[in-house]
Amino acid sequence: MNPLRVTVWNEFLHEKVDDAVRTIYPDGIHGAIAHALRGQGGFEVATATQDEPECGLDARRLAATDVLVWWGHMRHEELPDAVVDRLHQEVLAGMGLVILHSAVASRIFRRLMGTNCTLRWRDVGEKERVWTVAPDHPIAEGIGEYFEIPRSETYGERFDVPEPDRLVFISWHAGGEVFRSGCAYHRGNGRIFFFAPGHESYPIYHQEPVARVLANACRWAAPRVRRATKDFVHAEEAPEQARG
Amino acid sequence: MNPLRVTVWNEFLHEKVDDAVRTIYPDGIHGAIAHALRGQGGFEVATATQDEPECGLDARRLAATDVLVWWGHMRHEELPDAVVDRLHQEVLAGMGLVILHSAVASRIFRRLMGTNCTLRWRDVGEKERVWTVAPDHPIAEGIGEYFEIPRSETYGERFDVPEPDRLVFISWHAGGEVFRSGCAYHRGNGRIFFFAPGHESYPIYHQEPVARVLANACRWAAPRVRRATKDFVHAEEAPEQARG
Amino acid sequence: MNPLRVTVWNEFLHEKVDDAVRTIYPDGIHGAIAHALRGQGGFEVATATQDEPECGLDARRLAATDVLVWWGHMRHEELPDAVVDRLHQEVLAGMGLVILHSAVASRIFRRLMGTNCTLRWRDVGEKERVWTVAPDHPIAEGIGEYFEIPRSETYGERFDVPEPDRLVFISWHAGGEVFRSGCAYHRGNGRIFFFAPGHESYPIYHQEPVARVLANACRWAAPRVRRATKDFVHAEEAPEQARG
Amino acid sequence: MNPLRVTVWNEFLHEKVDDAVRTIYPDGIHGAIAHALRGQGGFEVATATQDEPECGLDARRLAATDVLVWWGHMRHEELPDAVVDRLHQEVLAGMGLVILHSAVASRIFRRLMGTNCTLRWRDVGEKERVWTVAPDHPIAEGIGEYFEIPRSETYGERFDVPEPDRLVFISWHAGGEVFRSGCAYHRGNGRIFFFAPGHESYPIYHQEPVARVLANACRWAAPRVRRATKDFVHAEEAPEQARG
Repeated sequence: MNPLRVTVWNEFLHEKVDDAVRTIYPDGIHGAIAHALRGQGGFEVATATQDEPECGLDARRLAATDVLVWWGHMRHEELPDAVVDRLHQEVLAGMGLVILHSAVASRIFRRLMGTNCTLRWRDVGEKERVWTVAPDHPIAEGIGEYFEIPRSETYGERFDVPEPDRLVFISWHAGGEVFRSGCAYHRGNGRIFFFAPGHESYPIYHQEPVARVLANACRWAAPRVRRATKDFVHAEEAPEQARG
Repeated sequence: MNPLRVTVWNEFLHEKVDDAVRTIYPDGIHGAIAHALRGQGGFEVATATQDEPECGLDARRLAATDVLVWWGHMRHEELPDAVVDRLHQEVLAGMGLVILHSAVASRIFRRLMGTNCTLRWRDVGEKERVWTVAPDHPIAEGIGEYFEIPRSETYGERFDVPEPDRLVFISWHAGGEVFRSGCAYHRGNGRIFFFAPGHESYPIYHQEPVARVLANACRWAAPRVRRATKDFVHAEEAPEQARG
Repeated sequence: MNPLRVTVWNEFLHEKVDDAVRTIYPDGIHGAIAHALRGQGGFEVATATQDEPECGLDARRLAATDVLVWWGHMRHEELPDAVVDRLHQEVLAGMGLVILHSAVASRIFRRLMGTNCTLRWRDVGEKERVWTVAPDHPIAEGIGEYFEIPRSETYGERFDVPEPDRLVFISWHAGGEVFRSGCAYHRGNGRIFFFAPGHESYPIYHQEPVARVLANACRWAAPRVRRATKDFVHAEEAPEQARG
Repeated sequence: MNPLRVTVWNEFLHEKVDDAVRTIYPDGIHGAIAHALRGQGGFEVATATQDEPECGLDARRLAATDVLVWWGHMRHEELPDAVVDRLHQEVLAGMGLVILHSAVASRIFRRLMGTNCTLRWRDVGEKERVWTVAPDHPIAEGIGEYFEIPRSETYGERFDVPEPDRLVFISWHAGGEVFRSGCAYHRGNGRIFFFAPGHESYPIYHQEPVARVLANACRWAAPRVRRATKDFVHAEEAPEQARG
């Protein structure tokens, strides 16, 4: 079996302008995620960042990507329409997409969901406990009942997304909130997984259970088919006539 | 518009054998729920308990019931097959069903879900905060972002139920658990709502927001059609021939 | 109870340029739908068309609309971003939306679905039989097992939409296709119903069962809450501290 | 990778008492399905029938089964409670289950669904065309837009089942009916696929696309975890205290 081709994309801004973030993620958040995935095995991992030509997301790159992992926060609106359109069609055609943390507000996630994807939040480094609600789901494999993140940004309900096709994780936050932190969707021929943990100021992508969830998510989101859905099909001849 | 006919059913055991429970619910848990519903308006409320003939659920009673509210805990297995069968068919035909707290393990709920409906629990009187995740859902009307239950039994994930048709509430528990505490289902022609709050040892059914949820749930679960689904339909004549 | 305020929107092009269409719909498709809804009772019906200022969809109009019924076909791409944005936010805030036939390709439906909404089609006036698969759903009230449309445009699978929250109707087409012709969705605080029947060249909106479905759909889609979802909520104070 | 262990179960009555059925399925329907699966590769296939001790479904057999394929028609009610209970718990623990055709009325399918699973039917050998509505679903792999069954029993809506987690196929029947003929469910830790084609009087299990669907369904339904869900978990110690 060929290794799964994963591209880890990062807007790559915090790490350049904030020493604290750079200390946690010296190779960038994308570097840390790529490292985590390589450690899990079975992946051929590339990275791409927003400052590259075409935001690192030209047609060739996407054609060579089975699953795209997405981290962004401050620069969502800078992504040009043409890039969002291309991404959108690739996901609908079958490319997997893993949306991390603040990328909940990315243009591509909002476009795929059709909603505002807004939520309640607070960033004070509270404890988060991620509960598995679908232990049978491939993304929960090896995770157990729950795992903890010692310091996390608090995301809380109401989370304005369509009802997930499968709800995999719900998070408990020490300050009193709950959040649907692992949501699996099918759109077009593509699979999308949103996973909430992962703030730039906490070393969350260095945690083992998080690496495991990311690897599971990439395997789950891998394309089963890859075929565009953008054209209407004019079926001039009726199936019944065809066989008359 | 005629008032909705609600029957509140209770196994009615704790209140008879436990002074502490009787102090909280002197008229029985069913009495407290009936009182709460009457206070919300628009209902014609009756009660029934497990020690009545046919467990208080004879055919005439069910025919006169739009929505059945169900509380039970210790005596689930005493409910005879014939009563469960009748209830099951009434719900599939369209009668609404509101399942409360420990009735999660009732025969009728397990039968409708097709799963074990098991969960994680602890009864130490921890605080529960019920978050609204579907503010657009009729059952959440008037509830706001969340409400609190000062002392509650802790129910936690994993909760072994089918993915709800709509997930309305998720609870945060002070001890560290989360729970899908408001789950709406359609089965046959019937509507079923499971609502987790409501232990016998805490005065939860005297709380205003709980009364409101119960009233909303009854209104939501009211039958849109009431017609049995138990027979296969032999359509001897094809629609196409019928019009040939 | 106040009447439900429905606005029937039409791109209103076919009726102006095609004599055959004008013969079937002398008051426009919007006029026929408005007439059908008025005949069902309980609605205050207005109409709007694409050539009006702001496409007939200014903020005041939308604020006075509980449910928007949408018919379009040839001019989807002419709808400006600002109008689509406003519509989108109104639906997410709670305004109901009923999408008819070729409006499956409208900008607003594609945006809410997040998919291409493509399908297979053929326009040869074949018979369509609309089967009720969810007789308990309010939109199917009074419809019976099925109804027929003598001559219809054929829409067939695969239909590129997210799995509906409830699938209400499936159509059988004489030429050999099937189609999920009645799909109910929740997005944000809003309710969306897609209903496939209704080509400009066939007098489908004059049929009684179609009028009934439209009326049911408007009642079902009426807002339960109307509150914008577009802002993230910064909850500086944790619920737990607040009560500490 | 170890081959998937599939057990094909058959009530095995029609073939013994009806010459016409035996002519089509000389090795029994189970024999034909087992042959079809072996032809697809990757499976270790066993068979079991209702007349064997414990209906061929003792604990050892189930423990050695990853996916159970089920065909039955006339003898559903003869299956003892103990066998249905055991099967039910195995599926909830993670064993895959593929339910074929008239097994829609089997005790195990009705128990897992919680509904009556009734439908409309007619047996006159009409043509059935099975349309793929979820081409991205693993069970549709290699199936194309549709395939045809020259003579089939007609199953039609309304089909009294819970909304499927994924709807994979919808059938068109020449007599005018439609039917949700491929429905995928998750219950407990298990996966269940219902596939409608397959009457005893038509050689449907000898058709290539049907063999392909069966093989895909077995691969999809294979357990991801296998762990009983039948016990409530008393979590005496709160996660928060545990870490205090």
